[in-house]
Amino acid sequence: MGNGLLIVISGPSGVGKGTVCRYLLDKNKEISLSVSSTTRAPRIGEIDKVSYFFTDKEQFEKMINNEEFLEYAYVHGNYYGTPKKNVLEKVEKGQDVLLEIDIQGALQVKEFYPDGVFIFILPPTMEELKKRIVNRGTETEAAIEERFKTAYKEIEYVFKYDYAILNDEIELAVKRIESIIEAEKCKVKRQIEIIKDI
Amino acid sequence: MGNGLLIVISGPSGVGKGTVCRYLLDKNKEISLSVSSTTRAPRIGEIDKVSYFFTDKEQFEKMINNEEFLEYAYVHGNYYGTPKKNVLEKVEKGQDVLLEIDIQGALQVKEFYPDGVFIFILPPTMEELKKRIVNRGTETEAAIEERFKTAYKEIEYVFKYDYAILNDEIELAVKRIESIIEAEKCKVKRQIEIIKDI
Repeated sequence: MGNGLLIVISGPSGVGKGTVCRYLLDKNKEISLSVSSTTRAPRIGEIDKVSYFFTDKEQFEKMINNEEFLEYAYVHGNYYGTPKKNVLEKVEKGQDVLLEIDIQGALQVKEFYPDGVFIFILPPTMEELKKRIVNRGTETEAAIEERFKTAYKEIEYVFKYDYAILNDEIELAVKRIESIIEAEKCKVKRQIEIIKDI
Repeated sequence: MGNGLLIVISGPSGVGKGTVCRYLLDKNKEISLSVSSTTRAPRIGEIDKVSYFFTDKEQFEKMINNEEFLEYAYVHGNYYGTPKKNVLEKVEKGQDVLLEIDIQGALQVKEFYPDGVFIFILPPTMEELKKRIVNRGTETEAAIEERFKTAYKEIEYVFKYDYAILNDEIELAVKRIESIIEAEKCKVKRQIEIIKDI
């Protein structure tokens, strides 16, 4: 039994990576979603160790200093991060782990774990991306414009990834990711033990 | 529209790569099989330009000198080779082309066209491979032993390939190859034009 895959799914704001990931996990029960740590307060309905590992600032900063995160970020006064331990233990046991994170986080993960499978979700067109950002409807016009500009710049980072998936139709996007997972398992570099057994 | 894929399927003698390729082509009519050139005489039922490009020794050697082959070999007094022109024209038009060749040939192709997708077919076990070689039933015991020894040495070359596929069940093996083809099309390096359009 070889290692599992660390599947990193990322992409610009508004591209629909959350929906793609939920659909992928729903169809593939053997893939486990990585749970993040955060210092923000739990919202109603959120469960500790399932939604997030809820922790305080002191503890989080101690973990940063001990290099216990695959990646972390400080956003709007709160820390968010992916603890190395849980992810790597599962991967070493042969389990596939999914990480849904923003681009900066994905690049941090790549630094530490280049053997991951880095997938970038692309919008069908930039117009479509703008429409999706607008349709969230929770933001002012200025905030929407800002978010779109950021997304536009973020697209450039696709060249740091292994794969790019067009999110034109959710079923197709998920099928592409499933193919990538199956293909990655067929890579010679991931099957050295199996080949030696033959 | 980007380039098509050059899919190179290879593996040790007796592993069943012919069967895998026929099944793959049968299910995926859009993939075209590369036609080889040979100096051997046509057998009954073989059609020029479909089974092989039948040619004479002088013409074949002229093509060798002009570097018109992706790979070629001299076997039992006859030349066999893959003409560059047909394969590369199709690939540049966006068509996927399948090459079913032996290991030496595949390594020659990789030298000239490293951007191909190199897939090695593995037997489930070496015992199974031996059984398959024996079951062909057309050879003497010494010839079988020789063929098996060669196959054993050939397995080592898997480490020069991108992917290794276990030929345990034909349907599964073909499904794995289909996933590899889909995943390769999702690679960022193969989608640079598409990404620029977005």
